[in-house]
Amino acid sequence: MTPPALGLPMVDQPSSDRERRAPATPVLPTHGVLRPLGLDEARILGGFWGHRQAVNAGATLAHIEHWLEREGWLGNFDAAAAGLAMTDRRGREFSDSEVYKLLEAMAWELGREHHPDLEDRFDSVVERIAAAQDADGYLGTMFGRPGQAERWADLEWGHELYCIGHLIQAGVARIRTGHYDRLVRVARWAAEHVCEVFGPDGLQGVCGHPEIEVALAELGRALGEPRYLSQAALFVERRGHQTLGDIEFGRAYFQDDVPVRDATVLRGHAVRANYLAAAAVDVAVEHQDGDLLKALALQWETTRDRRTYLTGGQGSRHQDEAFGEDYFLPPDRAYSETCAAIGSVMLSWRLLLATGEPRYADLIERALYNVVATSPSDDGTSFYYSNTLHQRAPGEVAPTDVASARAESSLRAPWFAVSCCPTNVARTFASLSSYAATTSDRGVQLHQLMPMQLSTRLADQPVRLTVQTDYPHNGRVDIRVDEWPDEHQGSASVLSVRVPDWCRAARLVRPGHDIVEVAPGLVDVTGLRIGDNVVLELDIGPRFVWADHRLDAVRGCVAVESGPLVWCLESTDLPEHLTHTDLDRVRVDTTEPPRVRDGRVEVTVDLVEAPPNSGWPYGAPGAQAAAERFDVALTPYHDWASRGPSTMRVWMPTAPS
Amino acid sequence: MTPPALGLPMVDQPSSDRERRAPATPVLPTHGVLRPLGLDEARILGGFWGHRQAVNAGATLAHIEHWLEREGWLGNFDAAAAGLAMTDRRGREFSDSEVYKLLEAMAWELGREHHPDLEDRFDSVVERIAAAQDADGYLGTMFGRPGQAERWADLEWGHELYCIGHLIQAGVARIRTGHYDRLVRVARWAAEHVCEVFGPDGLQGVCGHPEIEVALAELGRALGEPRYLSQAALFVERRGHQTLGDIEFGRAYFQDDVPVRDATVLRGHAVRANYLAAAAVDVAVEHQDGDLLKALALQWETTRDRRTYLTGGQGSRHQDEAFGEDYFLPPDRAYSETCAAIGSVMLSWRLLLATGEPRYADLIERALYNVVATSPSDDGTSFYYSNTLHQRAPGEVAPTDVASARAESSLRAPWFAVSCCPTNVARTFASLSSYAATTSDRGVQLHQLMPMQLSTRLADQPVRLTVQTDYPHNGRVDIRVDEWPDEHQGSASVLSVRVPDWCRAARLVRPGHDIVEVAPGLVDVTGLRIGDNVVLELDIGPRFVWADHRLDAVRGCVAVESGPLVWCLESTDLPEHLTHTDLDRVRVDTTEPPRVRDGRVEVTVDLVEAPPNSGWPYGAPGAQAAAERFDVALTPYHDWASRGPSTMRVWMPTAPS
Repeated sequence: MTPPALGLPMVDQPSSDRERRAPATPVLPTHGVLRPLGLDEARILGGFWGHRQAVNAGATLAHIEHWLEREGWLGNFDAAAAGLAMTDRRGREFSDSEVYKLLEAMAWELGREHHPDLEDRFDSVVERIAAAQDADGYLGTMFGRPGQAERWADLEWGHELYCIGHLIQAGVARIRTGHYDRLVRVARWAAEHVCEVFGPDGLQGVCGHPEIEVALAELGRALGEPRYLSQAALFVERRGHQTLGDIEFGRAYFQDDVPVRDATVLRGHAVRANYLAAAAVDVAVEHQDGDLLKALALQWETTRDRRTYLTGGQGSRHQDEAFGEDYFLPPDRAYSETCAAIGSVMLSWRLLLATGEPRYADLIERALYNVVATSPSDDGTSFYYSNTLHQRAPGEVAPTDVASARAESSLRAPWFAVSCCPTNVARTFASLSSYAATTSDRGVQLHQLMPMQLSTRLADQPVRLTVQTDYPHNGRVDIRVDEWPDEHQGSASVLSVRVPDWCRAARLVRPGHDIVEVAPGLVDVTGLRIGDNVVLELDIGPRFVWADHRLDAVRGCVAVESGPLVWCLESTDLPEHLTHTDLDRVRVDTTEPPRVRDGRVEVTVDLVEAPPNSGWPYGAPGAQAAAERFDVALTPYHDWASRGPSTMRVWMPTAPS
Repeated sequence: MTPPALGLPMVDQPSSDRERRAPATPVLPTHGVLRPLGLDEARILGGFWGHRQAVNAGATLAHIEHWLEREGWLGNFDAAAAGLAMTDRRGREFSDSEVYKLLEAMAWELGREHHPDLEDRFDSVVERIAAAQDADGYLGTMFGRPGQAERWADLEWGHELYCIGHLIQAGVARIRTGHYDRLVRVARWAAEHVCEVFGPDGLQGVCGHPEIEVALAELGRALGEPRYLSQAALFVERRGHQTLGDIEFGRAYFQDDVPVRDATVLRGHAVRANYLAAAAVDVAVEHQDGDLLKALALQWETTRDRRTYLTGGQGSRHQDEAFGEDYFLPPDRAYSETCAAIGSVMLSWRLLLATGEPRYADLIERALYNVVATSPSDDGTSFYYSNTLHQRAPGEVAPTDVASARAESSLRAPWFAVSCCPTNVARTFASLSSYAATTSDRGVQLHQLMPMQLSTRLADQPVRLTVQTDYPHNGRVDIRVDEWPDEHQGSASVLSVRVPDWCRAARLVRPGHDIVEVAPGLVDVTGLRIGDNVVLELDIGPRFVWADHRLDAVRGCVAVESGPLVWCLESTDLPEHLTHTDLDRVRVDTTEPPRVRDGRVEVTVDLVEAPPNSGWPYGAPGAQAAAERFDVALTPYHDWASRGPSTMRVWMPTAPS
């Protein structure tokens, strides 16, 4: 199909004036305190995240494309384009979205680096999805075709708008990286169709899975088209008024229980909740609706305080992939879906841009290092869907040639029947550098500490900073000022660097200045000149952390962190004569502080006597005499199970005092 | 339809020789150590269970019939009988089974007491289901009719054999209470059809929900028809060989992962697991297959030791209503389905009859008092489906006029979209007295302590015992010997009474004998004469219990029991100035023993200072200074939420020592 003329310019070439192009970033609000740097302005130079970006580009994208092809989820588009009866359609109702998320990941990756081969593969996939677009702009392989239910017949579970939302986000990635190509036309045509069908006088419905909202808001920003933003706002405001059915999980599952602006906490399906809240921030910011923004900041805060795992993960219930009640955060079978953490990053990032408050970057850091980075294996070809904090029995190694049906798979699997997480990780990693730094009227802000080259402009003067660091393995961050605005010209020229909330001691070292002790938050550095070297020294020494006593499930336990990393104890590291189940017998001695040895954190533990293997397990309190005492190395949580099946604990019982 | 002649006598009248009729009991093995007393031999005389039986007969049966009618689950049979297209069929695929379970409950109730009106209602329901039976004996409203999938098209989820199993169990209830009526003919005809279709040369399948096995085994026993037992054995042995599909939850969900005789623990869906194991015991006993019986005893033991809640409840996962890993027993959102406890009683009872070991009666007692009795409200018209051990936020009162979609409803609901529990409770209560006592070659065994009249025969001599007790509210049990065999004639004449496993001190008092301290287990009383009065005095004083330290979720907590009852703390009982959420601040002082005041157990607690309401919930250990100290009354767990919405804890944190 060929999209019709839609009234707005539809050029196939990027703007000739590259300098004036919007930054290559997924979120670019018109208002708010901070303006993000794009992929082209903030480049990661190796290190923890650079490695992951390289693996993502070099392995994960091809891995995903391979699975989309072999599972037939790409083929669905071919069948639809050929007008075939869709009786053999493959995959779940949302499988189209994985193709779009791959396109989005490819688009960001192409914006980040030049890959001629990837460009061809991208174009080829775009051709196939474009061919399946209907004459009225509708695109989807699950509804409305021969042998299928009517379009929009199942707003609760159909995921039609959800899929189109991901198509639009892929289109936005393309626009923001300087292309106005076929994907953009397809996405825009679909957006027009959505506005037509669901506009003020149209179907008074919303999608069971929020996503179209955040997509339309951004497409509106990217194209300067207020109609898309209005439609996003309409969807946001429409939700919470029980237009969706009362499903078994209750309407809170898809946030249709309470209007967004009346809610006080995120609830229901954790991915849905975060996507919706992210879109609501977009609407609040664009409409300069302070009340709505305030409501979302409150929801974020309550959710962080009462419904978030130590890892930054969210959603503790397997049954409906949902938030539980306040303080219901069992480490056992913690759900903590990878996609929920990504949704939480989306929400926090938007609130950070809107308010400038560093607490949002703190939570982003936690979720990135301890959930998003945990999902993929080191080679980028297998993934966790859920991220438990306690593994009681060693998991089974997932076969590499079959999609895993089970999200709770305790070892990473190459693909899932519901495979939202691999594609979500891929698009996040490809665009990651644009979540690291911003500019504002005051200057430049560095929110995430990674080796980076930042190149942007402040008050039309060039800025270039080089950040060098081995963070999170080392607390020293060197910031070299390569280009910097001339202060005498009155431009904003403060460099603000985030000292993370977990940091107990930090100092700022500048040649020719006194060393300054700094506290968590954004630390301002003024009076910079070209050639300056600013050093931030963070104490990343390992530390014990305890949980609020309302988190019942981890009473009497302690966890270990160093810098932004959560660590865990794996059975793999127990002395050789112990088995996987002996992990239950380990008690941490908290009078011996955790310390680093050979690059790993080590703690001292007592091994209590093995309990009897049979008998009713309730009665008098069991004596727990220490049978053995040893030092044991912990594993960064993001790396667990990479040496094979193991039992694992983030929360470790403490030795009786 | 009229059933064909099936070769075996099909009389409509009970045997004229009432004395030689089999006992009116759901389970009557041909072999084994113990022989159960029927409803007609063991009658409950009021008290805890007598009250529940009266409410069941007077309110619950009519309540269930009302809901089956209004939800159209009974009407499905009328539509099927009329040959209508079943496009408007109501309810889930297993809704037929609720009608059959009502019939079973009515049948036992009619066997227990004379109710002319109930007899008519019973007959009327039987007429309606009988009219829907097909010419070949098949009975079911979900498959094989105009507009429906073919019969047996979905063994994984279709529940066809499951439903027929409940039909057969209702038929067994009718046979055992002395009737060979239309229901029996219908059930038998359906059983014949199942044997025909799934026999050795038939479909090599099993049902996704075990139940047909236990039903066919018992019908075989009731009619002396070995073919039914053989078919049950075939189904039992066929399972575990992956004839069912690999569903999202995995084949362990319906126990098709490992052959029954190779398994070491119950796993997967907790109701399915118990029903299957119960049937396997039946097969083992009838085939005198010691290896199979041993395997099941091991599975029972491992499951009791590692996968059972303090309440006797089983199944900790909401997602698949399943057992979790060993020691995964979070009180928060404990699933502990009512039906799983009933399934556990079914399994324990069969193992008790087979072996005579009192540990099985111990677990039955725990599950009956703390799960089965918990499900229904005092008026018998609303029910728990799941039985959590920790309620974090007060539940919403379920509307009385709408079936609740949500099994996790934290307040009792009148009916559910999946309404297995109310009918299961009803049939269990109606037949309850036949789980209380047995006879053997040695004499009479009293397993459950309730006010009862026992009338049976030992070696053809009459036995009559009257048990008087306020148990579980009082530890004194009086057993009066009204009739007893003459020992000189050499008959077995030992009375054995179970002293429960929880009991720390018990003694046996007989006029003219020394008082004897007795330990948990079956205590033999010999040398009885007519007119004797035997008194068992059990210390039911309240006690603290702790959990094995591998039950991580309740570390640092204590629970309270008295006699067989588990108690809980409800927010309703906190001092008036405290709120529901202040329950989180209560710490039990374990140096002050629990005691009884005004009929309720009381403990001394400290109220720790209210924690801050916001902030990241992980960091340094919070000080927990006691702000207040008071005594608080606990509620018997089975009675929780009967005074309205509350927060509740069975496991209470202890005060820091």
